[in-house]
Amino acid sequence: MRATIIAVGSELLGSDRADTNSLFLADRLADHGVEVRRKVIVGDRIVDIEREVERAGAEASLVLVTGGLGPTQDDLTRAAVAGALGRALIRDPAIIEDIRRKFASFGRDMAPVNERQADVIEGAVVLENRRGTAPGLRVEEGETTFFLFPGVPDELHGLVDQALEPWLVEHAPGGGFERRVFKVACLAESDLEGLLQPFYSEFGNQGVSLLPSPGEVTVGLTTGGSVEERESWLEPRERLLEQLLDVYAFGRGDDALLEAVVGCLLVERGKTVATAESCTGGGVAERLTAVAGSSAYFLGAAVTYSNSLKVSLLGVPEQMIEDHGAVSAQVAEAMARGAREGLGADYGLAVTGIAGPGGGSPEKPVGTVHVALAGGGAADMIERRFQFPGDRARVRRLTTQWALDLLRRKLLGAAMSEYGLSAGADAQSRP
Amino acid sequence: MRATIIAVGSELLGSDRADTNSLFLADRLADHGVEVRRKVIVGDRIVDIEREVERAGAEASLVLVTGGLGPTQDDLTRAAVAGALGRALIRDPAIIEDIRRKFASFGRDMAPVNERQADVIEGAVVLENRRGTAPGLRVEEGETTFFLFPGVPDELHGLVDQALEPWLVEHAPGGGFERRVFKVACLAESDLEGLLQPFYSEFGNQGVSLLPSPGEVTVGLTTGGSVEERESWLEPRERLLEQLLDVYAFGRGDDALLEAVVGCLLVERGKTVATAESCTGGGVAERLTAVAGSSAYFLGAAVTYSNSLKVSLLGVPEQMIEDHGAVSAQVAEAMARGAREGLGADYGLAVTGIAGPGGGSPEKPVGTVHVALAGGGAADMIERRFQFPGDRARVRRLTTQWALDLLRRKLLGAAMSEYGLSAGADAQSRP
Repeated sequence: MRATIIAVGSELLGSDRADTNSLFLADRLADHGVEVRRKVIVGDRIVDIEREVERAGAEASLVLVTGGLGPTQDDLTRAAVAGALGRALIRDPAIIEDIRRKFASFGRDMAPVNERQADVIEGAVVLENRRGTAPGLRVEEGETTFFLFPGVPDELHGLVDQALEPWLVEHAPGGGFERRVFKVACLAESDLEGLLQPFYSEFGNQGVSLLPSPGEVTVGLTTGGSVEERESWLEPRERLLEQLLDVYAFGRGDDALLEAVVGCLLVERGKTVATAESCTGGGVAERLTAVAGSSAYFLGAAVTYSNSLKVSLLGVPEQMIEDHGAVSAQVAEAMARGAREGLGADYGLAVTGIAGPGGGSPEKPVGTVHVALAGGGAADMIERRFQFPGDRARVRRLTTQWALDLLRRKLLGAAMSEYGLSAGADAQSRP
Repeated sequence: MRATIIAVGSELLGSDRADTNSLFLADRLADHGVEVRRKVIVGDRIVDIEREVERAGAEASLVLVTGGLGPTQDDLTRAAVAGALGRALIRDPAIIEDIRRKFASFGRDMAPVNERQADVIEGAVVLENRRGTAPGLRVEEGETTFFLFPGVPDELHGLVDQALEPWLVEHAPGGGFERRVFKVACLAESDLEGLLQPFYSEFGNQGVSLLPSPGEVTVGLTTGGSVEERESWLEPRERLLEQLLDVYAFGRGDDALLEAVVGCLLVERGKTVATAESCTGGGVAERLTAVAGSSAYFLGAAVTYSNSLKVSLLGVPEQMIEDHGAVSAQVAEAMARGAREGLGADYGLAVTGIAGPGGGSPEKPVGTVHVALAGGGAADMIERRFQFPGDRARVRRLTTQWALDLLRRKLLGAAMSEYGLSAGADAQSRP
């Protein structure tokens, strides 16, 4: 079953209002195995709405239209859908009474313009709106079912629960889609594609999606059908992906968070961490503490933005900063040691770098970042230098991602040879 | 001039990714008086993309397509547009070389799949992408100009500035809409509406928009017409808004940032700040350092998540924590003093609270937060207690917002009686 979602409203064509109704509807449809073919936003122009409705009716068996059901002159959805389907609009006095009663219950008179909300498309089923005044409508035309819903999110949600969900339960294929997700950290999308070549050779790329964000790629496997069909499609693919992605995959599920995975690993091992941060300004600590319960393993951070604080809070020797600069392997390691010993944690995780736009030089351009991790074994220290691309925000974001991934790999006892391998390529392809 | 915006990407048809690129493009188009006719989202299916492109070409003189320009097999925009326009795709070796060079500058080899990004539609103008590897394209077909842009927001923004803006300056009707913006901090939307009653009485609400986000409301005034018409509409309205909003307004323009405004005030006065943070986990410091040049006024932070670090890093007396609890006015003030004296800054800004979901009690429920600011005069101290609504992320976000606003008002010498006034009401109405 395929659906097209039409959002009506000129305010949605502008720059400041995201169409969240369509996201909500797509989510509900996915639960019932209905695929969304297109999402469209049209303005309050009757010709445009009619054209979209006609087109949607031709391409989908379910068409959901939100918005344009209010009392004003800009509310044209009823008329447009009636026009597209060649049907009359009939004003229903019983609905006018309902609306009048709703206003009265708030001590108000109903302004006459509200009568437009009682116009019903010939042959439609009226869907009572318990959270507002404009009723929804359901119309069947040929192979297609059209639903007209209010655009006010709360009213839409109410009508969806009340009228769309039961209809979907009865008519949709059900079974729904099943989606399995691997979240991959610190691997460039093109390097990931390279890693997945054996998968593509064996299974092709149908049903596989790669969604990148800074320092992360979400790999999705989606399929439909019966429980058995889904399982037999997913099982071998998941197994091969697990094998190919190996330690690069840090979590399963769309809501897997690198900082939460790190938190779990620390809790499992009964270990604590403190951070020492310069260029990220507290960003690593902020991510670690975004996880509820992080006080079990996160002690605190020394955000030593100035060099004097690197000296006074973390014990970095002043001479070292003079000799090597604040952005150096030596200072990163000293900061990590300072976080571990000074703040009393099992692990000290440090970052120092040049986020930009200023501060760069030929030897240390903008994006130069050192990450260091002290802890595990008493004298254990891992340090890496990176060259991150992008603007200030991106460099800071990538730094927190690579720092957290370093800690994750250390806790897993993973081979460190792979860590940071992709940091160069990431500079190019959408890290 | 009419434009249609097409966003390509199956991930946008689902439920978890809002199409922010189209909002951004609509905004830029509005500046040039270009009306958006339709916004569409299509999946990674070549037939669907082709059909949308054909349709858009028939209805609009400007078509903007984002997404689907990457190196993977799902990236089909170039082929789809070529197909829709009946043109060939020609792989350009010079572009392959460019991409290879970009990878090399980061010490990496270019994976062969990237060569697809060098496919150019016959007759197209190549738009160099300085923030990524896939070039954009501009194609003229009959009366319509098509732009193909990457879907990665940062790369899209770069190419829009570089290639679309100049084109619009030359071809768009101009005049455009003019928008004046006031950014308001720490005032509930409903309290703000109350403050604006005199404005509504005098001018009505046409052309006024209120867009809330946590701890902030963006007030926009938008109008069109000739330069004189726009000026005569805007001038009296701006003047009254300035008067009514007073200190609540912290900046002008959609890109005004509270942390940047605070930074400017500190620089003007030659003052420095350090933060002492518990529940925000470094979030205040992270915001302050998001601003380029913040090293001029931000020294660092002590993120004292554990009580022992409040004692050892900030000198908070252990007995005080035992007597009053870590979340108390006394501890907040001691932390602020510790940040100021211990970290050597002119101002010490401290936050301590219960972000949730755990940790609450009847006396101190989740959302209880104390903010304290030491500095200005030698013995100056301001402390406030808040009850913030929402989940962990929201409580942490609101805390950083109120903390930054406290510092801003102190630096402005503003009356402190108004600060925090709205925080209770905020608990109700969407802070």
